[in-house]
Amino acid sequence: MTQAPPLREDDLIDAIRAVVERGSSRVCVGIGDDAAVWQPSRSHRSVITTDALIEDVHFSRAWMTWREIGARAMAANLSDVAAMGARPVLATIALGIAPGPSFDDVLELYAGLTETASAANCTIVGGDLTRAPALTLAITLVGDVRATHLKLRSGAKPGDVFACTGPLGASRAGLQSLRGELTLDEALREEALQAYRSPRARLREGVWLGASANVHAMMDVSDGLSTDLHRMCERSGVGALVSDVPVAASAAAAARALGEDARQYALAGGEDFELLVAIAPRAFAHVASRFRTHFGRALACVGVAREDRAVRLVIDGVERELARTGWDHFAS
Amino acid sequence: MTQAPPLREDDLIDAIRAVVERGSSRVCVGIGDDAAVWQPSRSHRSVITTDALIEDVHFSRAWMTWREIGARAMAANLSDVAAMGARPVLATIALGIAPGPSFDDVLELYAGLTETASAANCTIVGGDLTRAPALTLAITLVGDVRATHLKLRSGAKPGDVFACTGPLGASRAGLQSLRGELTLDEALREEALQAYRSPRARLREGVWLGASANVHAMMDVSDGLSTDLHRMCERSGVGALVSDVPVAASAAAAARALGEDARQYALAGGEDFELLVAIAPRAFAHVASRFRTHFGRALACVGVAREDRAVRLVIDGVERELARTGWDHFAS
Repeated sequence: MTQAPPLREDDLIDAIRAVVERGSSRVCVGIGDDAAVWQPSRSHRSVITTDALIEDVHFSRAWMTWREIGARAMAANLSDVAAMGARPVLATIALGIAPGPSFDDVLELYAGLTETASAANCTIVGGDLTRAPALTLAITLVGDVRATHLKLRSGAKPGDVFACTGPLGASRAGLQSLRGELTLDEALREEALQAYRSPRARLREGVWLGASANVHAMMDVSDGLSTDLHRMCERSGVGALVSDVPVAASAAAAARALGEDARQYALAGGEDFELLVAIAPRAFAHVASRFRTHFGRALACVGVAREDRAVRLVIDGVERELARTGWDHFAS
Repeated sequence: MTQAPPLREDDLIDAIRAVVERGSSRVCVGIGDDAAVWQPSRSHRSVITTDALIEDVHFSRAWMTWREIGARAMAANLSDVAAMGARPVLATIALGIAPGPSFDDVLELYAGLTETASAANCTIVGGDLTRAPALTLAITLVGDVRATHLKLRSGAKPGDVFACTGPLGASRAGLQSLRGELTLDEALREEALQAYRSPRARLREGVWLGASANVHAMMDVSDGLSTDLHRMCERSGVGALVSDVPVAASAAAAARALGEDARQYALAGGEDFELLVAIAPRAFAHVASRFRTHFGRALACVGVAREDRAVRLVIDGVERELARTGWDHFAS
């Protein structure tokens, strides 16, 4: 076996995309978006997404019940369907079981998976069970979307407003709280733990935003805003100037308590599962106002898309390069 | 954590099926067949199947190249699509990478996945990459089938002839050969190694058999004939009398060399990926003759379905209970 050079997730995905030539004309969107898209019949688009969660890489059993592990894994996958503007239809589960869990533990895990899927009108239709060295949960979701409502990462145009369906960073604060690195007031601790243990996929928001022709691009913010904004910009061939970083209250409190930069919770935190959208500038105020009426909270402005490919953050009036500080599975 | 009672794979699947209520009317077949089935539009049926392969559970890198690992994993999944009478359309890959493999190793793995998928007109559309304690490859395949050509495990009727698209057991002989437990003549060794390292999914055979109204039930024989025949009988509400166990030449030679029962290679061996079908008795001779003309080999008769639910094997004129001796992921 050859010695491993450092793997960077996005480089590896690009290289894999080059190996996997797209052959079928029925496949509309291949590797590189939140989900792939194909055409089961002329009027329909189906989306498909796969995500794997591995014990001690993505979660620890010390901090969550089996039911929460299942619910969270399903939410993460539902979020990818939401990011396409689609509605989930069905799920398959490949479960690798490590020595330890009982029959009842596995059923609790499935109860969590099922509850979260059912709440989204999604049916678990099958899967595979196997032994594994660590609990491994690979979920595949299939969803439906009208061709005209499908949103990709690649549609952002210079001048578009980047906005987010909610503030970010609470999930990281929740993890720090569970690890005992942090003490928060009761309500903030609850927000943070909820974000980490029981995140909600923005499915209604995704369908609503997908239906608007003024929404040019959409993705979910699962790996931290800095990394995911870079991805949307690369796929769209634009740059970004970030003027506002929407930070959750619990993340802001965590940053204060630990003397850290609150923005880093949102930029690098990951697993918040809000949606990032690029909206036509003339329509932004109108869309944001209707969003608030409909969902009872702000569609938070993050910045604007620019022709210049750089991704920059304004701090105290000075533009600085925004590094990708979010989650990379192969960074050390 | 509670202490683990012994898990039996099929019991666990039954219990999971009870947890996962089927909610959606668009899902036609849920947990328990080779693949699940749904209805993207009135005239179409889509099938979906997920399978996970884990290093040192399903394969060892000592015996296969990265490319072979990829090709074999894809073939195992294509086999589940074949078992429904369907044609594969697209695949997603969730890959968990353990410390060790280089960038090039991962691309070789993808080359194997892609070659095998492309040969079956199947496109890899996306997936997920993550770190993992052992190489973990979860593949999800989506296929298409006409509603009238779809074959389930549950359609066998008393009197039907059980038959197999090829002889079984070569894969186990190949594994024994790789482990150095066995010396075979060159040609037989080649057959055995090919069966283990580079199995072929019976896709053309599956589509052809699916198109026949006389084929009442179909599944692939991935876990050994004894276990898989039990599964088909249970789902169909019939029993079986097995009169002929089709054994591959290399498996017969391996049994002779090791003083073992050749039938056990087929009954318990697993991973042969032939298709098991139940065919209307009056049509069997005709279907088998056309099969031979079309594919150049026999559709091997295994036995008959009976009303009595027992699954029995005739040896020297005496009927004995046929135990499930095939692969169970949770048996010790």
